[in-house]
Amino acid sequence: MTAESEKKTPTNVTVWNENIHEREDEAIAARYPNGIHGAIASIFESNDYEVETTTLQREEQGVPQSLLDRTDVLIWWEHVAHDEITDETVRRIKERVHDGMGIIFLHSAKDSPVFSSLLGATGHSKWENNGSREYLWAVNPSHPIAQGLDECTKIPNAATYGEPFDIPKPDSQVFTSWFEGGDVFRSGVCFQRGMGKIFYFRPGDEEYPIYHHDGVRQILRNAVDWAASKNQSSP
Amino acid sequence: MTAESEKKTPTNVTVWNENIHEREDEAIAARYPNGIHGAIASIFESNDYEVETTTLQREEQGVPQSLLDRTDVLIWWEHVAHDEITDETVRRIKERVHDGMGIIFLHSAKDSPVFSSLLGATGHSKWENNGSREYLWAVNPSHPIAQGLDECTKIPNAATYGEPFDIPKPDSQVFTSWFEGGDVFRSGVCFQRGMGKIFYFRPGDEEYPIYHHDGVRQILRNAVDWAASKNQSSP
Amino acid sequence: MTAESEKKTPTNVTVWNENIHEREDEAIAARYPNGIHGAIASIFESNDYEVETTTLQREEQGVPQSLLDRTDVLIWWEHVAHDEITDETVRRIKERVHDGMGIIFLHSAKDSPVFSSLLGATGHSKWENNGSREYLWAVNPSHPIAQGLDECTKIPNAATYGEPFDIPKPDSQVFTSWFEGGDVFRSGVCFQRGMGKIFYFRPGDEEYPIYHHDGVRQILRNAVDWAASKNQSSP
Amino acid sequence: MTAESEKKTPTNVTVWNENIHEREDEAIAARYPNGIHGAIASIFESNDYEVETTTLQREEQGVPQSLLDRTDVLIWWEHVAHDEITDETVRRIKERVHDGMGIIFLHSAKDSPVFSSLLGATGHSKWENNGSREYLWAVNPSHPIAQGLDECTKIPNAATYGEPFDIPKPDSQVFTSWFEGGDVFRSGVCFQRGMGKIFYFRPGDEEYPIYHHDGVRQILRNAVDWAASKNQSSP
Repeated sequence: MTAESEKKTPTNVTVWNENIHEREDEAIAARYPNGIHGAIASIFESNDYEVETTTLQREEQGVPQSLLDRTDVLIWWEHVAHDEITDETVRRIKERVHDGMGIIFLHSAKDSPVFSSLLGATGHSKWENNGSREYLWAVNPSHPIAQGLDECTKIPNAATYGEPFDIPKPDSQVFTSWFEGGDVFRSGVCFQRGMGKIFYFRPGDEEYPIYHHDGVRQILRNAVDWAASKNQSSP
Repeated sequence: MTAESEKKTPTNVTVWNENIHEREDEAIAARYPNGIHGAIASIFESNDYEVETTTLQREEQGVPQSLLDRTDVLIWWEHVAHDEITDETVRRIKERVHDGMGIIFLHSAKDSPVFSSLLGATGHSKWENNGSREYLWAVNPSHPIAQGLDECTKIPNAATYGEPFDIPKPDSQVFTSWFEGGDVFRSGVCFQRGMGKIFYFRPGDEEYPIYHHDGVRQILRNAVDWAASKNQSSP
Repeated sequence: MTAESEKKTPTNVTVWNENIHEREDEAIAARYPNGIHGAIASIFESNDYEVETTTLQREEQGVPQSLLDRTDVLIWWEHVAHDEITDETVRRIKERVHDGMGIIFLHSAKDSPVFSSLLGATGHSKWENNGSREYLWAVNPSHPIAQGLDECTKIPNAATYGEPFDIPKPDSQVFTSWFEGGDVFRSGVCFQRGMGKIFYFRPGDEEYPIYHHDGVRQILRNAVDWAASKNQSSP
Repeated sequence: MTAESEKKTPTNVTVWNENIHEREDEAIAARYPNGIHGAIASIFESNDYEVETTTLQREEQGVPQSLLDRTDVLIWWEHVAHDEITDETVRRIKERVHDGMGIIFLHSAKDSPVFSSLLGATGHSKWENNGSREYLWAVNPSHPIAQGLDECTKIPNAATYGEPFDIPKPDSQVFTSWFEGGDVFRSGVCFQRGMGKIFYFRPGDEEYPIYHHDGVRQILRNAVDWAASKNQSSP
């Protein structure tokens, strides 16, 4: 930190999407005309970031080593492709996280083999796609990922996830969700592996326009800034 | 642990109550004819425990050194007497916890000077006495305090507490509460100070018959067993 | 817990050894005539335990599903066979830990693919085989694994391990080692994955008679008791 | 974070010293001609900081409310004055930390009533003033407080502190010390209370020129930057 003027280097953000729902379901395609990855990438359209998108369908499942090597923070959206992710893809990402790349898992990506490989637990939880109201409470309001938000971020319609959520004890728990049907969920949790920072963030079903929600976009911006700060990782 | 037959020493449980509401409000007196302390003490009527009750009105605020010295686990119910608790009472309890006595804080006892003295934070949170439904989810289902319960412990009417809850990061988070009005709360959290184990448990307003609820009684029994096991403290 | 007399079910302990040094080096064979696994198994010769040993050379790398299914706590000694352990072996053990089996990794087993798979980090550290004195300090003296020991467990000759040690933040840190050459190491650390408890314990090089040391044997007994208590896992 | 040029506001650092040894012992006065507080303050002579010093002998024990209100990070050096610190001083500092002021406790300040009040434990440990070599290992090398250092920070002569160290489980453990006599110590540990960040750092006996050591000065600079970043507190 310095009191002098300085110019920040942009953060390199890569948004990966399995990109299956958008191609198979017209309603989802209409909701996300540039894909879920496109909607997420639009959060990072500023001089602070260099953003690119990639999908499962590309070479080396969309994450060749060269792309990982230039990525500061990888955002991962995965829902139905869990069985398609190869051991080689998992290994490549895991090593790059150990080496310092941040990674943000969204929504069902908790069931990804990449998630399980980095955390050692299954990531399984209860689940129901019921369009419930979801209230995201910041239980650690001084955490960098909780900055600039209302006390409670309200999402009108979302899929419900419920505890128990099979994860290791998080290094930090930032958000807990309330769902109108009676469930709670640890919706924003932080981990570290090697030099790399990991954030899991729950909201994001393809059935609802979650990634157009201002609060969600603010949280993802905060999460990328947090995960990119290689040397700001611990409490 | 041994495969031989053996006889366990009973756990000495002391239930302390500020004992103010019961003496001033007929409805509460009817709900708890033996005081809130009496209702809690009745949980421990078995050969596994030796239980006694005490109140703020007694000598040395009900917790003389001799009583603390023979107590394995102290249960603390405090709501409106926060300003009456003396520094000397706080000091005596704090030292005994450091020395190995377990302590269980119930409900508004999170605002007690004893709580703040042991944890270093204020314990403050949002609060509304609205008779809401409360669902207690075990977010750490393998924790000893969560044993023998349904997946979700449902309380028909309770006061609502809401995040943010000003506590240090818990050593273990056992329960998270859902309230019908939209709030969530870390309702069961564990800490350790010195050799003593600390459990905070949210349910317990004097306005509702919480301590007659089977699930709540099971949790308090589990919590006493956990807090009494001096050498079983950590994950 | 009950004040009645009761008979405990014995804990089923399985000791797995890669069993390579003992067969290739006469000095090591002399030190451990029944193998390292035999020396470790002898710790559990009492009515409290049913112990069996197994090695990498057996069918299904010594850990068929049927053996894992009847095991409460698996002890794992691995040093030079890291590349031989198959993905299938790793998967089988990982699932069984999630399901509630305890596991104790000894010494270089921190570099095992089983360890990395459960913790998500590499387990790498500095290393030098120099016959240093090692002092094991209990930094969490109230932890069950630290019971019945001197304040400091002294090992006359050991291999040196040094920080940084690439592991996730432990749920509990029980021991820190001092080595005469100037290194320190987190030698006893606890984790949980799913319903299963994990303990890593550093001492144990094949070059020194570590598993004949009374303090080490007490710690391993404590660790098995801790890891077997499925519902006593958290702080 | 922004890619634009910007000018940082300086961090307001206040260095508090009990200031007793320097006035009573000529050798210590020679070592620290401007007091220990003066030596520490000299670390922060740059445009990034506004630093002031204060001592126990001043009005309101050197920490009037107005000074606390303008302080971003308070550094606290206390050794023999533990019994002189008033409850009012403790209360004033504790509330300001809850409100967001960072605090760094040095050396014997672990035995201060301010420390115990914020953490709830005694802070006691083993101790011997023997001029031992001390090696500070960064066990969490990606933590902001460990940046810009050698892998191991070597101090030629120091007082020895030894485990067990009676503190709550830290939110982050940054350094572990090795002492030539056989002791280890958690020398750099982080906590949070309310909105305020807390760092304890062991080195600093008045008998040795610790605060002239380049590595120690770098660590204190890092610690102030970390503790001042109100919204960067958690892992």
